[in-house]
Amino acid sequence: MVEMKADAERMAQQHPAFADWAFEDGHLLVGGIPVGQLAQRLGQTPFYAYDREKITARVKALRAALPKAVRLHYAIKANPMPAVVQHLSGLVDGFDIASANELDVALDAGMSDAHISFAGPAKTDAELKRAIAGGIVVELESLSEMDRCAKAGDSLGMTPRVAVRVNPDFKLRGSGMHMGGGPSQFGVDAEMVPEMLSRLAGLGLAFEGFHIFGGSQNLSAEAVAVAEDQIADLAIRLADHALTPVRHLNIGGGFGIPYTPKDKAFDLPLVGARLHETVEKLGRALPGTAVIVELGRYIVGEAGVYVCKVIDRKISRGQVYLVTDGGLHHQLAATGNFGQGIRRNYPVAIASHYGEEPVETVNVVGCLCTPIDLLADKISVPRADVGDLVAIFQSGAYGRTASPSRFLSHPEAKEALV
Amino acid sequence: MVEMKADAERMAQQHPAFADWAFEDGHLLVGGIPVGQLAQRLGQTPFYAYDREKITARVKALRAALPKAVRLHYAIKANPMPAVVQHLSGLVDGFDIASANELDVALDAGMSDAHISFAGPAKTDAELKRAIAGGIVVELESLSEMDRCAKAGDSLGMTPRVAVRVNPDFKLRGSGMHMGGGPSQFGVDAEMVPEMLSRLAGLGLAFEGFHIFGGSQNLSAEAVAVAEDQIADLAIRLADHALTPVRHLNIGGGFGIPYTPKDKAFDLPLVGARLHETVEKLGRALPGTAVIVELGRYIVGEAGVYVCKVIDRKISRGQVYLVTDGGLHHQLAATGNFGQGIRRNYPVAIASHYGEEPVETVNVVGCLCTPIDLLADKISVPRADVGDLVAIFQSGAYGRTASPSRFLSHPEAKEALV
Repeated sequence: MVEMKADAERMAQQHPAFADWAFEDGHLLVGGIPVGQLAQRLGQTPFYAYDREKITARVKALRAALPKAVRLHYAIKANPMPAVVQHLSGLVDGFDIASANELDVALDAGMSDAHISFAGPAKTDAELKRAIAGGIVVELESLSEMDRCAKAGDSLGMTPRVAVRVNPDFKLRGSGMHMGGGPSQFGVDAEMVPEMLSRLAGLGLAFEGFHIFGGSQNLSAEAVAVAEDQIADLAIRLADHALTPVRHLNIGGGFGIPYTPKDKAFDLPLVGARLHETVEKLGRALPGTAVIVELGRYIVGEAGVYVCKVIDRKISRGQVYLVTDGGLHHQLAATGNFGQGIRRNYPVAIASHYGEEPVETVNVVGCLCTPIDLLADKISVPRADVGDLVAIFQSGAYGRTASPSRFLSHPEAKEALV
Repeated sequence: MVEMKADAERMAQQHPAFADWAFEDGHLLVGGIPVGQLAQRLGQTPFYAYDREKITARVKALRAALPKAVRLHYAIKANPMPAVVQHLSGLVDGFDIASANELDVALDAGMSDAHISFAGPAKTDAELKRAIAGGIVVELESLSEMDRCAKAGDSLGMTPRVAVRVNPDFKLRGSGMHMGGGPSQFGVDAEMVPEMLSRLAGLGLAFEGFHIFGGSQNLSAEAVAVAEDQIADLAIRLADHALTPVRHLNIGGGFGIPYTPKDKAFDLPLVGARLHETVEKLGRALPGTAVIVELGRYIVGEAGVYVCKVIDRKISRGQVYLVTDGGLHHQLAATGNFGQGIRRNYPVAIASHYGEEPVETVNVVGCLCTPIDLLADKISVPRADVGDLVAIFQSGAYGRTASPSRFLSHPEAKEALV
């Protein structure tokens, strides 16, 4: 027992994610099942496995930290696996979609159409029609999209429900991806919103509210809290120009998760506490406006692992290579090749010798014919041989669907919700 | 006519690729067909279109520059579209594959099994069996793979044909991707090859030859020529240790193509001239050894365009955005997000106003909900409106298959060989 604790501490020092997962007899467990057994059940490696309980626990933590009045939405793009979306449909208050295919997944999961909204800068006429026919909220990204949306509604004989996505006039600091502040392909510049709202009512559109994002994958809770407050102030200003009540305000999310040992975990209690103040202010200025927090990565990102198998173990000029059947075609971001300036290791472990003492330094590579297919660069691990399993953590969001699965025509990764 | 010439010159100054393509009445032509007509034929945008004649012309240019004795192979991974592979099966002498699925494409295209070889650092037992049953050459990446290959041959009652992939003891300079010189997941370290060859014959394997790569996407012909000569010297040294004749030597390729205006076109005549000397030297030392040059990107990369449609035109804080139905889910490398440290524009043009005078500076973005979905950053173009088509050149290799097509669940790009 003392040894177990020491292991857990050592592992947590390498990366907090390591200590978050249970293991038994040296085997990593997902949903209580050893990953080796999961590989047999799925009939193959590589695969993604998502832990149902971890997703549930994360939503509970969010509910506990955020004000009760806040409506929690899941952004399907983070992980659109139907079973995951289905599971979340009973836990969150709404879904946000980014394409018409995600609309199908959202509605099939049983979410009420009134609580689904569709953002995206290039919605086609066909997509607009599908969204309107589905009864969901279209987030307008430009004045011309507003006109096209009205036409699509006319052609269907339906009144489109719309929100205005706003490109704010301030910038969120500390965000992995900056959105807003300057020129942008997303949303309508804040200063153009009054004109837009005055035209909107005349077009036969039902105005629902505003959607104002600050950024994504932000690890600074302080920065997120400041941005949320600024978003509230902007919404209060813009609401003066609305001809009908603002039924909802989507303030985005952007809560980050730690991918590398250098990343510090997001301070959820801090954001929750500050959001209480922001929500109170909003309640005074805009009574009756529901506040929506939209999260994707933060809900599912830490609940998933990507698992692949060691096919070859080779030593080349003094370095050990564990050559796996996985690779960047399944988990692009973990190789540092998806828009990342600098490559840093994700947390990677030998799933079939989990918790064992490290004895050597290895590189873990994929099966592709390119040197960029590097899953782990010089990590300390227990001895691993052909047939052992490798797990890459923090793989629950933007993993399988954000990877070039056809690259070199290798088999696709499967996925399971356990 | 004078105006046309001026246009061509101006366009060539922006990027040599622009001047390589024909156009008519302001419409870019692929295979003689206006891209707008192609969009109608395919029933959608976005799509990839590959120009059959350009592929043929590139192979002709290679044949003219390279020594007659050199066998030219196509690396299917660059573009595995079956129609492209079929077209090339009548033009080149062999195929190189990187996965078992590419094996199917190669054999379906009618290429002789004797001229197909399979490289890759993590071939599974199932893949090895498929390759041996297909009668193709397995390029051994390690000693343990050699043992597994022998076992797979035994289980099939067939003699595997094998080549040894060598990790050279020198490094190619100026390559977009370095391979060799240091430790590597690819091939067998040169210094271990003698031991390997001595064991190989006793395992019931038919030795075919060596495969020695230096790198890929190299724009320095001088560096490639030097590497090819070093590879020849290494092969001559290693051949001393072979118990049977070296039937072939695959010296790789790595000829680059210019993606950005800063890139200079690869000097094919220089490499060709120098390769004559190298091949003569090889002929004296190893008579009867066929020399193979393996190319992928250089054969198809400049023959393809990616075409998408403008869905919205918006002005945000002084900047014009052409918002298209395309994006990084189809053409990841063009957005600078596929392992590139620095983002630089690919050559991008308005395909439905081709050759017209530029009148404004625009950003071309995709349809995804992420600011990294940027197809062109501040380029000078003729006026483009909703419905106009945008073409991204140099998209014939590592385009559709090297992109995360499921990202945000948007429709996939089609492709056509024209």
